[in-house]
Amino acid sequence: MPDTSTTVASLKDAMRRFVAERDWEQFHSPKNLAMGLSVETAELMEHFLWIDAEASRRVVENNAELEEVADEMADVACYLLALTNVLNIDLSDAILRNLEKNAQKYPVEKCKGRYRVE
Amino acid sequence: MPDTSTTVASLKDAMRRFVAERDWEQFHSPKNLAMGLSVETAELMEHFLWIDAEASRRVVENNAELEEVADEMADVACYLLALTNVLNIDLSDAILRNLEKNAQKYPVEKCKGRYRVE
Amino acid sequence: MPDTSTTVASLKDAMRRFVAERDWEQFHSPKNLAMGLSVETAELMEHFLWIDAEASRRVVENNAELEEVADEMADVACYLLALTNVLNIDLSDAILRNLEKNAQKYPVEKCKGRYRVE
Amino acid sequence: MPDTSTTVASLKDAMRRFVAERDWEQFHSPKNLAMGLSVETAELMEHFLWIDAEASRRVVENNAELEEVADEMADVACYLLALTNVLNIDLSDAILRNLEKNAQKYPVEKCKGRYRVE
Repeated sequence: MPDTSTTVASLKDAMRRFVAERDWEQFHSPKNLAMGLSVETAELMEHFLWIDAEASRRVVENNAELEEVADEMADVACYLLALTNVLNIDLSDAILRNLEKNAQKYPVEKCKGRYRVE
Repeated sequence: MPDTSTTVASLKDAMRRFVAERDWEQFHSPKNLAMGLSVETAELMEHFLWIDAEASRRVVENNAELEEVADEMADVACYLLALTNVLNIDLSDAILRNLEKNAQKYPVEKCKGRYRVE
Repeated sequence: MPDTSTTVASLKDAMRRFVAERDWEQFHSPKNLAMGLSVETAELMEHFLWIDAEASRRVVENNAELEEVADEMADVACYLLALTNVLNIDLSDAILRNLEKNAQKYPVEKCKGRYRVE
Repeated sequence: MPDTSTTVASLKDAMRRFVAERDWEQFHSPKNLAMGLSVETAELMEHFLWIDAEASRRVVENNAELEEVADEMADVACYLLALTNVLNIDLSDAILRNLEKNAQKYPVEKCKGRYRVE
């Protein structure tokens, strides 16, 4: 199921089933899920800790490393999906509204090629 | 565009356009994106810092707070989508393989109602 | 060397020697050290991920667990000390000024028993 | 009180008083303090998010920025000190044992100039 044909809802459902089968809803408070999300994010970040930006771009050429990174990203995504399930949040809607808000905050004419508004 | 009809690819495309319009690809090394992901995750976590698990579940009843939390989750998702774009990763595929791997690691019969294999 | 007789400067010196012996100053940019600090903090946090606040207080009664937690805290402290070395920061001075600033921000009469000013 | 004459114990005491005056021990479970530590670490990391390693080293030349960074580091240190108070941990002792352990794990002859054992 590639990204081109997979809806966010179907991923949320897959995560919901995984949790329900293990009776893990009791551990999945938003507080715990946010902590877990942060822990997984740090594991992802660790892959890039001692290398510089250019070396981190070349991870794409290293299949073994790339697969590990993709798996860490999946861990992050799973906690995020679990949190959308618990809080009943439509993530697609939240993302698109967030991009609209950030388009106002970072207007193209002021931010092109700069990482902040100056 | 709700989760039921939005594909992961269309969210990746929306993020890609946002970044390209601002000429921000130069800042979006995997190293920087992983750091940004971690920063946004901490901002999400901060919402649940001083409250206990039960209170964090009740965030769902507080519309103003829930909207802020959803926006922080969107920030997290946007960095994750940007990273999939830079590393050319199929996130749906990575998630589904991750769930299969974790189904082996946490078999239902050993984990039902327990947060770790014992 | 217990906390009662150990100065912050002597800990900074111990860390500086450890780094210099390995010729690691080249990797110790503030950017990398801040990332490393965040990674170690997540490893510490993981010890408390699935347990509630009360259970986390009882870690003090479990010697084996407490020793692991103390070692993760030492990892966090070492990155923080390395960062003070690189940036030539007097940490004691920064802490005491921070406490004075926070004493203004969180006056006792408004914050007693509350985790935020209301 | 500079680092050369300030003991870790005196900083722990200063933090303990700050917390006790506000009756905040009730919020300071190890779980919450570890989360807070992670949140503050992310705020520190954010200062270095979009700049490269060399630019992050030059923060030392920018007094206003350096003062902000020192204050974020103090926030991190305060949560760490609070956690040592709650768990009754001797941090100096934990740091020195950690450095001895890491001296075994990263022997000079194998790690000089390399960020990992190869």
